[in-house]
Amino acid sequence: MNILIVYWHPEPASFNAAMLRTASRVLTAQGHEVQISDLNELTFNPVSGRHNFTTTANPEYFKQQDEEAHAARHDGFAEDIDIERQKLAWCHLLIFQFPLWWSGMPAIMKGWVDRVFTCQHDDDTQYPCDAAPFREKRAMLSLTTGGPESLYLAGGPLGTMSDILHPIHRGMLALAGFQVLAPFVAYQPACLCEHGRIALLEQYARRLRGLEQEAAIPFPAICD
Amino acid sequence: MNILIVYWHPEPASFNAAMLRTASRVLTAQGHEVQISDLNELTFNPVSGRHNFTTTANPEYFKQQDEEAHAARHDGFAEDIDIERQKLAWCHLLIFQFPLWWSGMPAIMKGWVDRVFTCQHDDDTQYPCDAAPFREKRAMLSLTTGGPESLYLAGGPLGTMSDILHPIHRGMLALAGFQVLAPFVAYQPACLCEHGRIALLEQYARRLRGLEQEAAIPFPAICD
Repeated sequence: MNILIVYWHPEPASFNAAMLRTASRVLTAQGHEVQISDLNELTFNPVSGRHNFTTTANPEYFKQQDEEAHAARHDGFAEDIDIERQKLAWCHLLIFQFPLWWSGMPAIMKGWVDRVFTCQHDDDTQYPCDAAPFREKRAMLSLTTGGPESLYLAGGPLGTMSDILHPIHRGMLALAGFQVLAPFVAYQPACLCEHGRIALLEQYARRLRGLEQEAAIPFPAICD
Repeated sequence: MNILIVYWHPEPASFNAAMLRTASRVLTAQGHEVQISDLNELTFNPVSGRHNFTTTANPEYFKQQDEEAHAARHDGFAEDIDIERQKLAWCHLLIFQFPLWWSGMPAIMKGWVDRVFTCQHDDDTQYPCDAAPFREKRAMLSLTTGGPESLYLAGGPLGTMSDILHPIHRGMLALAGFQVLAPFVAYQPACLCEHGRIALLEQYARRLRGLEQEAAIPFPAICD
């Protein structure tokens, strides 16, 4: 498989960075091709606007999806987006590696999605169903939490981790066509001792070795 | 009430901008004080890092919550964050006005939360329960969608709008101490005619006029 890992954490010595290195090492050893988009290293700009494009469909009113459809036809994406779009087109599996911040992706990673998950077709196609550029691809979240696993209980104040990840799994990844694999959640690694952290990385490594055989989470189909 | 509206949309002539103007006009006419954080106008940087601070708690390892607790004690927040923190401290009601992008806040708005919802106390306090800086405040989402209301059905591919907003309502706002009001969702305004758009703005205006009397959504308590 071709695997793209989109990664962000503000601290290079973080557990997230260790998870990234583990994934890169294990997946490469399995014979996969791995590319990494380290959003810090890229100094990725997460904010969308006309700078996403070198072309203009409508100079009077900016509607991002229309500009994306136009840019897709006229090779009109800005260079930073185009590079990431090419990595995305190349990959069979997309992994997001991030710390869960306020129950979602940190802003820079959300902005990678906002800018790189682009419309591919004319404005009159129903994105993403007709276009479905990512329909043949799989995606997986790999994340850390600041709080303990016990915070994520059914009926608890935050609901389950599945509830927390629902908009990302369904309303982002599945909506864009991806087959979504179960997430790998490293709960509160900051509170683990060195042995515990190593054991958790080994658990992640075992999970990654079997990834190719894993079935996707069965969600209701977005399109008929 | 003192009301802070945090707003972002890339197009100044958007329906979101019209909703912002409606809110500002109606709430001011009701006798409330309104401040607006227009994230485009502020060219707000949504990415967190050491630049969030003028002080340093730990030069060896960057842990944002520890740096926030330290900065709170030593007046160590960067100017752009400090200005927003002061607006947040001032307000009784916080409104987020945004287009729903990939089932969440656009990156720049998520980054406003990532950077401005800061720890207030020592690192050994359990944020947010002990600190609970926002416990006396209320918050409300006001958003637009690209898709129709029929996309958000129980058992449907995306689940309900309540499912989609769950991590923001519970895992961001309630977790930070806010009393959360029901969201105002403007479904697919781009597909409405002029009359429909005006009617929707009037519906929003009516909602806003009764806001002060509204009860919060009853969520399970985060802290005992």
